[in-house]
Amino acid sequence: MYLSRTAIAAGSTFTAALVLSAPAGAAVESETAFVFNTFSFLIHGVLVMWMAAGFAMLESGLVRTKNTAAICLKNIALYSIAGIVYYLIGYSLMYADVTGWIGSLSLFYNASDAELALINADTATPEQVEAVVSNGYSVMSDWFFQMVFVATAASIVSGTVAERVKLWPFLIFVVVLTGVIYPIQGSWVWGGGWLDAMGFSDFAGSTLVHSVGGWAALTGAIIVGARKGKFGPDGRVNPMPGSNLPLATLGTFILWLGWFGFNGGSQLALGSALDVAAMAIVYVNTNLAAAAGVVAAMLLAQIIYGKVDLTFALNGALAGLVSITAGPDLQHHFLAVVIGAVGGALVVIAVPLIDKLRIDDVVGAISVHLVAGIWGTLCVGIFGSGSLVTQLIGIVAIGLFVSIASAIVWFALKATIGLRANAEEETLGLDRTELGMEAYPEFRGSQTI
Amino acid sequence: MYLSRTAIAAGSTFTAALVLSAPAGAAVESETAFVFNTFSFLIHGVLVMWMAAGFAMLESGLVRTKNTAAICLKNIALYSIAGIVYYLIGYSLMYADVTGWIGSLSLFYNASDAELALINADTATPEQVEAVVSNGYSVMSDWFFQMVFVATAASIVSGTVAERVKLWPFLIFVVVLTGVIYPIQGSWVWGGGWLDAMGFSDFAGSTLVHSVGGWAALTGAIIVGARKGKFGPDGRVNPMPGSNLPLATLGTFILWLGWFGFNGGSQLALGSALDVAAMAIVYVNTNLAAAAGVVAAMLLAQIIYGKVDLTFALNGALAGLVSITAGPDLQHHFLAVVIGAVGGALVVIAVPLIDKLRIDDVVGAISVHLVAGIWGTLCVGIFGSGSLVTQLIGIVAIGLFVSIASAIVWFALKATIGLRANAEEETLGLDRTELGMEAYPEFRGSQTI
Amino acid sequence: MYLSRTAIAAGSTFTAALVLSAPAGAAVESETAFVFNTFSFLIHGVLVMWMAAGFAMLESGLVRTKNTAAICLKNIALYSIAGIVYYLIGYSLMYADVTGWIGSLSLFYNASDAELALINADTATPEQVEAVVSNGYSVMSDWFFQMVFVATAASIVSGTVAERVKLWPFLIFVVVLTGVIYPIQGSWVWGGGWLDAMGFSDFAGSTLVHSVGGWAALTGAIIVGARKGKFGPDGRVNPMPGSNLPLATLGTFILWLGWFGFNGGSQLALGSALDVAAMAIVYVNTNLAAAAGVVAAMLLAQIIYGKVDLTFALNGALAGLVSITAGPDLQHHFLAVVIGAVGGALVVIAVPLIDKLRIDDVVGAISVHLVAGIWGTLCVGIFGSGSLVTQLIGIVAIGLFVSIASAIVWFALKATIGLRANAEEETLGLDRTELGMEAYPEFRGSQTI
Repeated sequence: MYLSRTAIAAGSTFTAALVLSAPAGAAVESETAFVFNTFSFLIHGVLVMWMAAGFAMLESGLVRTKNTAAICLKNIALYSIAGIVYYLIGYSLMYADVTGWIGSLSLFYNASDAELALINADTATPEQVEAVVSNGYSVMSDWFFQMVFVATAASIVSGTVAERVKLWPFLIFVVVLTGVIYPIQGSWVWGGGWLDAMGFSDFAGSTLVHSVGGWAALTGAIIVGARKGKFGPDGRVNPMPGSNLPLATLGTFILWLGWFGFNGGSQLALGSALDVAAMAIVYVNTNLAAAAGVVAAMLLAQIIYGKVDLTFALNGALAGLVSITAGPDLQHHFLAVVIGAVGGALVVIAVPLIDKLRIDDVVGAISVHLVAGIWGTLCVGIFGSGSLVTQLIGIVAIGLFVSIASAIVWFALKATIGLRANAEEETLGLDRTELGMEAYPEFRGSQTI
Repeated sequence: MYLSRTAIAAGSTFTAALVLSAPAGAAVESETAFVFNTFSFLIHGVLVMWMAAGFAMLESGLVRTKNTAAICLKNIALYSIAGIVYYLIGYSLMYADVTGWIGSLSLFYNASDAELALINADTATPEQVEAVVSNGYSVMSDWFFQMVFVATAASIVSGTVAERVKLWPFLIFVVVLTGVIYPIQGSWVWGGGWLDAMGFSDFAGSTLVHSVGGWAALTGAIIVGARKGKFGPDGRVNPMPGSNLPLATLGTFILWLGWFGFNGGSQLALGSALDVAAMAIVYVNTNLAAAAGVVAAMLLAQIIYGKVDLTFALNGALAGLVSITAGPDLQHHFLAVVIGAVGGALVVIAVPLIDKLRIDDVVGAISVHLVAGIWGTLCVGIFGSGSLVTQLIGIVAIGLFVSIASAIVWFALKATIGLRANAEEETLGLDRTELGMEAYPEFRGSQTI
Repeated sequence: MYLSRTAIAAGSTFTAALVLSAPAGAAVESETAFVFNTFSFLIHGVLVMWMAAGFAMLESGLVRTKNTAAICLKNIALYSIAGIVYYLIGYSLMYADVTGWIGSLSLFYNASDAELALINADTATPEQVEAVVSNGYSVMSDWFFQMVFVATAASIVSGTVAERVKLWPFLIFVVVLTGVIYPIQGSWVWGGGWLDAMGFSDFAGSTLVHSVGGWAALTGAIIVGARKGKFGPDGRVNPMPGSNLPLATLGTFILWLGWFGFNGGSQLALGSALDVAAMAIVYVNTNLAAAAGVVAAMLLAQIIYGKVDLTFALNGALAGLVSITAGPDLQHHFLAVVIGAVGGALVVIAVPLIDKLRIDDVVGAISVHLVAGIWGTLCVGIFGSGSLVTQLIGIVAIGLFVSIASAIVWFALKATIGLRANAEEETLGLDRTELGMEAYPEFRGSQTI
């Protein structure tokens, strides 16, 4: 999913359009391609931004009422922080002058001089237009598209550690995750770094986005610890059911919708027949994998438990989506059905397993984003053009880096300002103790206080 | 709304662009038009996909809490199943080699050989590009756009038969509806079959999508039977109010939004001034008809009942949208106001009438999608260029076919695995008995058990 | 944000494209630019339409349960009425033949004769295409985009005067606001009137849309009066907390998403490298300002109150968005962070201040849309190319006009059919007394009756 400057110089899909325009006059001309490519980043970026709302609704629906306002606040805050921090340092670290391990530490990021010259010209010259168009896309549109991806990674974490992590320590973790951890590993692949050079392939981020969020969530869940009463001393797992399942359903639909931007926009160009035809394939695979994830999770739950659980179906959809994200450009769509179905089935197996390990993942994000993220990344080696060994190396390298870096941050926060609410606060709920308010003040039927 | 291969060969709007490009060099060139047309299918398809969430929220808001998780599950499952089944057989049945009554039984559907050759080429030749571009749009983008339409038809059914139909039998019905019933009738018009040859006109599916869902819902409501206690022995209709009206409102707004994709995308092309100007007209008519449906339903409810009911306003919007769907290309927008207003008024009349017939339609989908769907299809004969007689023939033919086919499936399910929950399950609610969970476990104020 | 006909004739961005195409054959050709520009209005207009759902959810979440169905109804009704009234008279008043103070009183609005000729032609001639294309965009797409803006202005009012204003009088106010008041002041700037001639600058409507809604809301709040019990006789302000904060969060995310259409689409053209690069800058600034608004509001609330309130964070996002709306084309993005942060901080200060003035604003819309709207409009003079004095003149002129006109309408309604529910109705809630229904009939835990 990266646009390395060298790739463009050497003849990417949009410069290909330029070449083709010479003989027949029938190809997309270069300024038109520029508009298409830029607009694709913008409109697909909007769809990915919408996923922030999807996570907010999914998590609001899956926590208990006493922590609902707090999880809403965390979600809108993390999206905001991710955007600002990625603007200040993350993007440069990930994409600018990446040499070896990390990128540039230059602050801020603005439109290119060529674009500003064009915009500010009284009358633009063809040369000024050409200087802009030769880049293939507007640089700030790429920034926008990359920014919503880092926010997605952060969104994954909030659900897992919900209902007991404190607001400000969590947000400090988000600052480090989105400003440093995510960009560094991102630079290894999409920034054109060493994993990219090895041939590691991750189209839209099964590993680079979803597993990253998953590893950060996993270390967080271990270091923060389980919610009070979640695991009995006798190995019993106490269900703590989500308080508003229609909202969780809405969140899943929002995420599904946003994923067309996530995967479709990761084609990174729209300005040629090749690109848009490939994008159509990506859309179709994305939808089929999610659909197969739902059906597989439902069937497996019916077989194992004799009942179909709604949350398994929802997480099945998400697992199908995560699974296809590393390779949604598969040319036989039936493979997408297979990949998504396995992803959905994995969730039904992983959720109780993680419970058994006494890791308390409130929304199932580790199963969905980490387990299915690994599966999806391997699929590029199994079904696609990638090498299974290289895919494994990438999974392990990024997993180790993110886990260790995240653990250091979680531990540092625990040792200093503290990481979780105390027992009384947890019992009363974070809404009341941290925010001083209630999410549903008039609905007090049988609320667990 | 069909793209018959012959039409394209003979000079559709996008091949027209090619012709125009010759003299002045000022027209959209063919690869650019290809990108526009394909992107229109994708982005409008995303909006229609979003309607699945709209139905889920509308129905979640209009059922009682004890059946809310079940209706969420049905909605995400039906969307998933529709997508897979339409991939496996539906699309081929509807569009491939349609001769006479039904289409091809070939399984699967993939990008064309020309598109795959282009995508897989190391360096694409102008001939390879031309082979793709000459089709006017990418084939998988069309599949995606058609797929979300069949899902809409299935979504209509779930609301009507909510709160008593069992999960798996309902989903089996969805398999047949989306894999066989919908595609066969669709092939008659959009597949270029006999009704199309007669001149039957349905721009985006007042009949082909909405009435089809409506007929399937109607036969389902009759065969499944009413909810326990809905109709008293003395002819009394017991209100069973929806449990979460903001969600129903959200669902309506989502559907309204999605309808711009539904009707706007059904222009089927974007790559010329003609197409995009026509699309703008479609957008405007779609919005005006919905708005008029709201206002008419509110005013009529105020006049008849002395109060304005929110659900009438919501269903008024939807009825306005269904009404304009057969002919949103009207060139005087005031007609859209008239058509939508009549649609909205029809709902206020039809809902109590259907109650009086002791047909239990939980969300009013029969009034909205069938009654307004018939009205909208007739409008093409009244206000548009269609023949009223031909429109009537299409309405009756499709109505008969879908009703009979649906009835056979509903009866077969009833006679074998059973179709509805037993009395005790219905009293306890499907959430608890089928799913083993609650949608709002902490809100138990006065929940009807 | 206006497309004056003269501007296009003289060489706007898309006619510039035509000029550029001459030398190198590399620019976007004119019909392609027409498609881009028109599609931008349509797709960005859809995003702005979605804001109507955002307001509905925000307000549903921030009122009490007994008035929730009523606020849902007001929101869908006002969007519908705004669309119809703006079609009947508003758009002509604002844009057609604007001379001096108000525009044309011609009714209805349809596609241009040139567009209808093109659409209805058996075979379009290059001259017919050129006649359409020379306008730069399809006229109905512009109507659609402008219509969703007027609906936004009306949406702002409903939240402030919620929980006590009666349905029909409120809707009559909406008719006058959207049909007369908004279009007249809009004609002064976007219609090319006297404020535009003076150099007053408001890119997407901090003043023309948001402050207008804010002034109308402020006068409404004063004239309708506060909710019973909101302000104690001893100067005490009684909190009346919103009943469903996840819905309010969802509403905020929807508004944020829609704002990319609001500001991005206000570039008014997409068909050149210049336009799409400028649009990318607008998207980025819009997001950064909102994010900064969240963070600033959270930090300030933490400092002042020792706790972070979710509603402050949500309103901080909206205030950041309103603040950047007058000048989202800033070329150094860090300024967007500053502008949005100040906007977010202003809300934390303004909300208690307005309470102290005993003005009852249920959702904080006056602080968000009026206070931040004024701030954002001034920013164009402070940070942008505008004159601070001219910006002040525009703010005052539009503020006076809208306040006086609104006050006249509110008073006229009060004196005739009455404006607010009586004490008993207010106690029982508008849902029961005006609509005869409940928003959440099964959740009656501790509902305040």
